[in-house]
Amino acid sequence: MNSNSVAMTDLSEMKHKLETVCIFGTGDFGRSLGLRLLQSGYGVVYGSRGLKNSLLLPKGSKIMSHAEAACEAHVIFVAVQREHYGFLSSLASDLEGKVLVDVSNNLKRGLYPESNAEYLSKLVPGATVLICGDSADAKQQVTNIAQSLSFTALDRGSLRAAAELEDLPLQLFPLWRLPLNIAICLTAFIFFYVLTRIVIYERVTNGKDIAFRIMISLANKAFPIVSLVMLSLCYLPGALAGFLQLYNGTKYRRFPDWLDRWMLCRKQLGLVALAFGFLHVLYTLVIPIRYYVRYRINVYTISLVKDNKTYEFDNTAAWRFDSYYSMGILGFGLFVLLGITSLPSVSNSLNWREFRFVQSKLGYLTLLLCTAHTFLYGWNRFLNPESYRWWMPPAYMLSLVVPCVVLILKLILITPCVDRKVTRIRQGWERQGKTSANGGDTKINQRLMA
Amino acid sequence: MNSNSVAMTDLSEMKHKLETVCIFGTGDFGRSLGLRLLQSGYGVVYGSRGLKNSLLLPKGSKIMSHAEAACEAHVIFVAVQREHYGFLSSLASDLEGKVLVDVSNNLKRGLYPESNAEYLSKLVPGATVLICGDSADAKQQVTNIAQSLSFTALDRGSLRAAAELEDLPLQLFPLWRLPLNIAICLTAFIFFYVLTRIVIYERVTNGKDIAFRIMISLANKAFPIVSLVMLSLCYLPGALAGFLQLYNGTKYRRFPDWLDRWMLCRKQLGLVALAFGFLHVLYTLVIPIRYYVRYRINVYTISLVKDNKTYEFDNTAAWRFDSYYSMGILGFGLFVLLGITSLPSVSNSLNWREFRFVQSKLGYLTLLLCTAHTFLYGWNRFLNPESYRWWMPPAYMLSLVVPCVVLILKLILITPCVDRKVTRIRQGWERQGKTSANGGDTKINQRLMA
Amino acid sequence: MNSNSVAMTDLSEMKHKLETVCIFGTGDFGRSLGLRLLQSGYGVVYGSRGLKNSLLLPKGSKIMSHAEAACEAHVIFVAVQREHYGFLSSLASDLEGKVLVDVSNNLKRGLYPESNAEYLSKLVPGATVLICGDSADAKQQVTNIAQSLSFTALDRGSLRAAAELEDLPLQLFPLWRLPLNIAICLTAFIFFYVLTRIVIYERVTNGKDIAFRIMISLANKAFPIVSLVMLSLCYLPGALAGFLQLYNGTKYRRFPDWLDRWMLCRKQLGLVALAFGFLHVLYTLVIPIRYYVRYRINVYTISLVKDNKTYEFDNTAAWRFDSYYSMGILGFGLFVLLGITSLPSVSNSLNWREFRFVQSKLGYLTLLLCTAHTFLYGWNRFLNPESYRWWMPPAYMLSLVVPCVVLILKLILITPCVDRKVTRIRQGWERQGKTSANGGDTKINQRLMA
Repeated sequence: MNSNSVAMTDLSEMKHKLETVCIFGTGDFGRSLGLRLLQSGYGVVYGSRGLKNSLLLPKGSKIMSHAEAACEAHVIFVAVQREHYGFLSSLASDLEGKVLVDVSNNLKRGLYPESNAEYLSKLVPGATVLICGDSADAKQQVTNIAQSLSFTALDRGSLRAAAELEDLPLQLFPLWRLPLNIAICLTAFIFFYVLTRIVIYERVTNGKDIAFRIMISLANKAFPIVSLVMLSLCYLPGALAGFLQLYNGTKYRRFPDWLDRWMLCRKQLGLVALAFGFLHVLYTLVIPIRYYVRYRINVYTISLVKDNKTYEFDNTAAWRFDSYYSMGILGFGLFVLLGITSLPSVSNSLNWREFRFVQSKLGYLTLLLCTAHTFLYGWNRFLNPESYRWWMPPAYMLSLVVPCVVLILKLILITPCVDRKVTRIRQGWERQGKTSANGGDTKINQRLMA
Repeated sequence: MNSNSVAMTDLSEMKHKLETVCIFGTGDFGRSLGLRLLQSGYGVVYGSRGLKNSLLLPKGSKIMSHAEAACEAHVIFVAVQREHYGFLSSLASDLEGKVLVDVSNNLKRGLYPESNAEYLSKLVPGATVLICGDSADAKQQVTNIAQSLSFTALDRGSLRAAAELEDLPLQLFPLWRLPLNIAICLTAFIFFYVLTRIVIYERVTNGKDIAFRIMISLANKAFPIVSLVMLSLCYLPGALAGFLQLYNGTKYRRFPDWLDRWMLCRKQLGLVALAFGFLHVLYTLVIPIRYYVRYRINVYTISLVKDNKTYEFDNTAAWRFDSYYSMGILGFGLFVLLGITSLPSVSNSLNWREFRFVQSKLGYLTLLLCTAHTFLYGWNRFLNPESYRWWMPPAYMLSLVVPCVVLILKLILITPCVDRKVTRIRQGWERQGKTSANGGDTKINQRLMA
Repeated sequence: MNSNSVAMTDLSEMKHKLETVCIFGTGDFGRSLGLRLLQSGYGVVYGSRGLKNSLLLPKGSKIMSHAEAACEAHVIFVAVQREHYGFLSSLASDLEGKVLVDVSNNLKRGLYPESNAEYLSKLVPGATVLICGDSADAKQQVTNIAQSLSFTALDRGSLRAAAELEDLPLQLFPLWRLPLNIAICLTAFIFFYVLTRIVIYERVTNGKDIAFRIMISLANKAFPIVSLVMLSLCYLPGALAGFLQLYNGTKYRRFPDWLDRWMLCRKQLGLVALAFGFLHVLYTLVIPIRYYVRYRINVYTISLVKDNKTYEFDNTAAWRFDSYYSMGILGFGLFVLLGITSLPSVSNSLNWREFRFVQSKLGYLTLLLCTAHTFLYGWNRFLNPESYRWWMPPAYMLSLVVPCVVLILKLILITPCVDRKVTRIRQGWERQGKTSANGGDTKINQRLMA
């Protein structure tokens, strides 16, 4: 090898390649970690209370007592359950100056240990490893190891941040909480509303039991309504934010907390709406194979024959129903497209302009199509007082309130004069009264720029 | 810490960890960037024209005048709008020898600033940061910082490449343009074709208004045709390339530009075809709940009763329709599979052989099934002169031309004798006449290899 | 540039940025690799037997003879087909001390060379490059280059591991083999079972030919059965593992090989089940547009009219069918959700607890819903001796065996007393008899921890 090649190589890198790493604990996690370290060229030595699992250890590793193992390496992964950490105190002198990596937080070992190996192998190259600690040096060493195992190490600050980090694996869909709660409450409300309006009303006024309609008819009223309302709730905060900026006359003022939190879960709101829309599609498509529907069609045909009447073709009805289905299909198609582009790997491959085009332009088009779909469903029954039962309007009318508000707000925001103002504000312009404190400074800077 | 561990650590790396980075501009982008830098252990100092937004700045950062801030750091991110860049000229002496990072191109700040923070937080670890510049040293420093923030830095060459880079975020689905234009033109053509053939023809010859059929019947003729044609357009360039290589007798000749461009957007062609196929499926599945269809079935049943006729069961029709639907479902199922494997995260997890197997073998099987589906739709009406109206054949017959051409070309290419030739060419073999210029050299090399 | 910045920069890194890399071979792969290297700032020199393809080479690269090119660089990529490797032996002296990178294994050049460029460009930043070799130094240099091209280099050990590595690109869905074979065998078995029970039975006993039902009716019996059985096969190994751990009284004993292999392909089993479930949904939804179904409904209506009977509404039937469809839709909806979360990019964004919640909790819920769906399909015909034909029970009854076993096993495992035991075992507890060998050691450790 010539001298040039020696200069080329980062020698310090080479050394840690051959370094020995110590793992306390021979459980699934310790073994998986050790295997991966060995594959990446590290030496691996296990520290264990006994030797009972030594047969299961990856080939090429060594096993010794905790104290002996600690002497062999500079970086020590503590892969035993936290309630057994006591033994570490007796090793205090052996651990002097070592980098101790506590991996327990990250994986909740012990609770689901049968699958930890699976989880670790699921960690594809490129997975992120969150690291926090007070020694920059120690962090760097762990980062180096993580990178050798093809993980992306992400420094999450000092040891004080560890508490937050430890909670991360215990979180269960934090951003999905609010949307799911809204969905559950809305579904329950709409369900009891249509239950009262249809099943109970029929029972009370006609004494007929049509409770079997709960399974499909009523579900297929609740699902589309929840879907439409949640889709519009997904676009409402953006519109509100626009009006707030107009009112404030500046973009340099924080939004209220509730609006911030709302905006953060827009994606989740949209995906829950899509799930309900998907169920609506399936519930609609099974209609013609339902027993009840076949029965009704059959009874109607027979009644026409017996009364010697003909089924008059109603051209308007043909237009109405076909438009109604067509809007629904196109809306759902676009909705699925929105869902696909919100997959992490797809949205990462879009640039900012493309992402905005899909999620904003196509999103509003979806909302428009779905709202039109609902209006066509109502058709001339809309606002018809006869369709009220016990003063309750049909459920679909309730579902139109939020989408219409969102669409009207958006319509106002895209009128040229309002749009111009919003754009200027978003480019940093501020209404005079708001900037009095630093107006002078701004002017000075503008002069410099001239 | 023992001496071994010191050797292990890359000290130069450690230093830049603690380095201070300067950000000019306290807007959304500047604040988000600063927060991320702080989290990664950098010191952050903001340079600002005033102090008005200092309350919004991330905790731990400092704010000072542009000149003072510039002195504190070696790397300076310029996160103000480009039209305000003027102030930089007055700082010329303070900026001497500094690395100035212009991030404006990358995100189009100013246009959509309300969402930049959202965009930056959307940038998951592993996102790619494109860098260009003339100083390898400066680029390396920015690369280091990007990597500390867990982005993948991608060197895109010298400053001359910056113009191209600046256009990247302004691109709106460049590879989708051609497929979408083809889809729109094809849809419009087929739509007007079937409009003429069905609605206008009926109006002219029978005086009946069946315009309501536009919404579903006609849409459901246009969508499957566009889907099938575009699916075959997705496989046509590969077949053409094979024949071109056979004709050229070598693979060492560039394909014509139009073929290159066509081959580059095959994935997009296929996905647009899938979207149209998806709409076709939904339009087909709503058929039985359409008012018009229920009306026709009802009228037919009543007419049978009145005429005292029975509905003779036609075994051939049962076979034909069931096969027709079955081919369609299987074709669509495979098509969805192709779509899923073209998701970035899925296709990245396939090796080359698997990717080829799915996209080529299964792709051709999909095309075969969908073509068979269309042939079964035509059945004995196929090429039947009675189905012509105003000399216009049924639309589905038009849709079969391209798929049949593709399938025939593929059939030729996979016949053993042709396949052998193509494989040899693709392994580097060249027809004699083509290599006369360097035939001697080739022979010499072949002798060496013996 | 001030001294501070010099210290900050890793100089050895800077040098290799400007280094020249040699590529033997000017084919598609060599050209694509060279372009990418040039873009990343490397010098590129091609070694070629002739100069015939020099016009196609990326701008900025040089071309010379193999020997001359070898002298220009320290790292040499050998991008010619393996059967032409002979020429390397004549260059032995020129290659002394060089790092020779054999990329041939990785991409099977020569077989599909027309698409290699496409494949290389498909390799997004972050793609993994597997490296093995005996010289740590050489490996580090190749790793550096790979990282400069924004690939993640993954060290796969010494040269002995190369054989395994060479097989990687030849693998064709290794983890899908078992699930697909199970699916094919099951489908074939169920298909011939229902063929005998329905078509052949009808032919033999009534002399009627209903073979047309193969296309949809029979397929729609086979697909849901295969889907349900495979979904339950996906959860069976986990339940078995729980019982095995209970029986062993420890988790520190390897599962038998067949169970390990089974557990490794659970995801694939589930996805194949989902694909069959998807086909089942489509086959079910086309039912009402089938010729045969329309015929039967028509005949039934006419017979009612002629016999002057009315279609009595059966409230129980309405409940039964609607519940049946509803369970199916909800089960399928959840199943699709499971499928989406198993996409690499989605499952990577979940933490361990979320992943387990979806794949285990929601997975069992899906299984429960789909099993209920099947029971409701059977309804009172279930275990009815009249539904046996030639002693063969209806096919759906067969399909319920495995799901019921899995659900019963799971039910046992989640009863409080069993669950407590399993949890303790999974946290490392071992039954007394099993730990006699190292019981003393354990006790000592427990004393230390107190």
